[in-house]
Amino acid sequence: MHDRQMHLGVFVLGTGNHIAGWRYPGAADSFQSLPVIQEIARIAERGKFDLLFLGDSLVAGVNDHPSFTARFEPLTMLAALAATTTHVGLGATSSTTYGEPLLVARAFASLDHLSGGRAAWNAVTSSGPKAAANFGREHPRHDARYEVAEEFVDVVRGLWDCWDDGAIVADRQTGQYIDPDKVRPLDHEGRFFRVKGPLNIGRTPQGQPVILQAGSSDPGLALAARTADVVFSVVQDFDEACLAYRALKDRLPAFGRQDSDVAVLPGVMPILGATEAEAREKLNLLQSFVTGSNAASLLSLRLGIDVSGFAPDDLVPDLPLPDTSHGFARTMLAKARREAMTWRDLHNLTGAARGHWVLAGTPVQIADTLEAWFRGGAADGFNILPPYFPGGFDDFVDQVVPILQARGLFRRDYSGTTLRDHLGLARPASRFFADGRP
Amino acid sequence: MHDRQMHLGVFVLGTGNHIAGWRYPGAADSFQSLPVIQEIARIAERGKFDLLFLGDSLVAGVNDHPSFTARFEPLTMLAALAATTTHVGLGATSSTTYGEPLLVARAFASLDHLSGGRAAWNAVTSSGPKAAANFGREHPRHDARYEVAEEFVDVVRGLWDCWDDGAIVADRQTGQYIDPDKVRPLDHEGRFFRVKGPLNIGRTPQGQPVILQAGSSDPGLALAARTADVVFSVVQDFDEACLAYRALKDRLPAFGRQDSDVAVLPGVMPILGATEAEAREKLNLLQSFVTGSNAASLLSLRLGIDVSGFAPDDLVPDLPLPDTSHGFARTMLAKARREAMTWRDLHNLTGAARGHWVLAGTPVQIADTLEAWFRGGAADGFNILPPYFPGGFDDFVDQVVPILQARGLFRRDYSGTTLRDHLGLARPASRFFADGRP
Repeated sequence: MHDRQMHLGVFVLGTGNHIAGWRYPGAADSFQSLPVIQEIARIAERGKFDLLFLGDSLVAGVNDHPSFTARFEPLTMLAALAATTTHVGLGATSSTTYGEPLLVARAFASLDHLSGGRAAWNAVTSSGPKAAANFGREHPRHDARYEVAEEFVDVVRGLWDCWDDGAIVADRQTGQYIDPDKVRPLDHEGRFFRVKGPLNIGRTPQGQPVILQAGSSDPGLALAARTADVVFSVVQDFDEACLAYRALKDRLPAFGRQDSDVAVLPGVMPILGATEAEAREKLNLLQSFVTGSNAASLLSLRLGIDVSGFAPDDLVPDLPLPDTSHGFARTMLAKARREAMTWRDLHNLTGAARGHWVLAGTPVQIADTLEAWFRGGAADGFNILPPYFPGGFDDFVDQVVPILQARGLFRRDYSGTTLRDHLGLARPASRFFADGRP
Repeated sequence: MHDRQMHLGVFVLGTGNHIAGWRYPGAADSFQSLPVIQEIARIAERGKFDLLFLGDSLVAGVNDHPSFTARFEPLTMLAALAATTTHVGLGATSSTTYGEPLLVARAFASLDHLSGGRAAWNAVTSSGPKAAANFGREHPRHDARYEVAEEFVDVVRGLWDCWDDGAIVADRQTGQYIDPDKVRPLDHEGRFFRVKGPLNIGRTPQGQPVILQAGSSDPGLALAARTADVVFSVVQDFDEACLAYRALKDRLPAFGRQDSDVAVLPGVMPILGATEAEAREKLNLLQSFVTGSNAASLLSLRLGIDVSGFAPDDLVPDLPLPDTSHGFARTMLAKARREAMTWRDLHNLTGAARGHWVLAGTPVQIADTLEAWFRGGAADGFNILPPYFPGGFDDFVDQVVPILQARGLFRRDYSGTTLRDHLGLARPASRFFADGRP
């Protein structure tokens, strides 16, 4: 029997996940550089990572996180990586709030073909109302966004199922190119979308690209429990992580699914040092790089409220959060209240990892903690957020991964070539052509 | 003084431009194979081509051209090629009828960064009403589509201008990442679109990606004359090509532009043989591969009317064309009437090159004809449509290009690295930050 092993993703932001990571000596300072991204992908494959993951947003603010301000469009960037990598999964965010199901289904199907079965779609709702102004629309309310998202995901998955395996015959003798019995329209007529289909791209290497999700609200968890293969959680400590883990897993049986169908990966920023003191110093150095304006801007963005008017040394009060905010906001505000933080403390926490967990220590300490979370019911693996690139990622892959491998907690090499292979997920049959198949 | 030289593009369809090209011995038979596309790109760079170009459509029909039925999504495919090529321009169609200006602007800006300045956008209106059913909308009428297209192109180009060069400062000492004086919103409030901007990607290597267009209707020519850098024309003989050439060029002065600002490239399918008879035999062999159902389906698609009810041996009558049809339809119907074609003849003509010009002969004959068109006021170069890949493209690059080079009609090597360099076009300054610049 194969022991349960961790799944590891890397959250890629070219200027580092720490808001001021680009200021670290030797760090890359651009999210618009293909060589930087290619180097990150090479490190991920050296570390046998399951997945390379990109967040996304549809707006730019000059005081936002540098990687939010000027970045590649995720699908084109991952397609470029598909041509120069061989194993690592390639996942990106694409919004269900400002997009067309046909275009999203097509782009990720194309990426799955181009990469030989390594595509993953992080299906999100757009939480920031600013995006609406780029599309000439009103921003929908939180509940409405999730109703749209439920239908959007179904349409995308339906479109992926319109082609059966073997539909492309390409018989030179007869001239038959397509077997018409293996392609069908979707004919979706729903509340928000009418989409005829089929896609103009055949069934993909993975059958369906992998679905990622990160929502932690009630409707977000419901959508994830029904449709996600991987869930990113945003947590600050072990107890909270266990609660988030069970909150998702306990919803699976209602959809006929079991724990092993979905991998829950908390986000964690590892800060490594030869001693714990050295790791703390590195974190302090990174925190000293944060400027007031971008920390306040990022915190306002994360909370969904303007915090620039609060005095840095005041305690964070119990604030009502707007409908447009998401799970990050609740997690951070709860921690700030629990630990009696000032606004300055909360700036620093957000600036470091945008609300994700920061773990500073020696390689063994970090491996010990990740193992405890993995064995203790808090995680099926982790989404690693290096504070800067490439050094902060090199450190994790060269110093922590070998310990996890030596303990049998992580693969020493890839045993397959698709992302589904890495995740231990079966290749699904099309719902429309399933007869006669396993 | 540098003599005027041709510009050459290659129209990429993985199964060949001929509808049955994939049946030719040794031909590639998939438009979903990255190795096939990479081989085509390698040949294009060996031939010092300006541009590799992809058409697109948003629907699939099992009897359509095989490359229309199952294909990569163009932007992801070109991004994959960006990582494995160094010089050839990368152009793709993206619709102004079923798209969002922000997403189109962002994707092509990203491709321009990823490729080091080789991106080109073919701004089309979607002519086929079937696409509407994939987006839950009514298909707009021809005139309305062009009104939308005019504004769409302006918004995209405006978004590309929202970032000035040098906006990303990334000063490690001060922590300043962006110079706020070099980024501004677009604040577009138009008849069809409201888009705030800016994009979340910096000014691209080309300043603005190159704009391609192919419309031949009055509103299509007006849009091209105002905004295009390269125009593809669809013509069947020299006189018609000269008329199409002048129809575009004569409109340029009204927009303050001159002949050299826009390259007009007729599409041509070269069929090569050691003798003219051998070339004719090759064309006949290709035509013998065409099956009735896919030729009729393609012709119906091209004309915008269902032709399956007409008898193959009847003469093509003078038919009213629907509002949704485009330039191809008029060109083909005019030729069919002029030459008293039967429906079978028209099937064959369309099956060969979708309404484009087919030129069969020896390498010298083909070079002679291209030279005559180039010198005679019919073309600034050509968009080459190999009937099948890779052999049909190898033939042109290995047998015709050297003759054009020996005559001084085409470059022996690239003199720059961006598509604008190849086309002899200056890198534009942003309209918003132009003071103090050349």
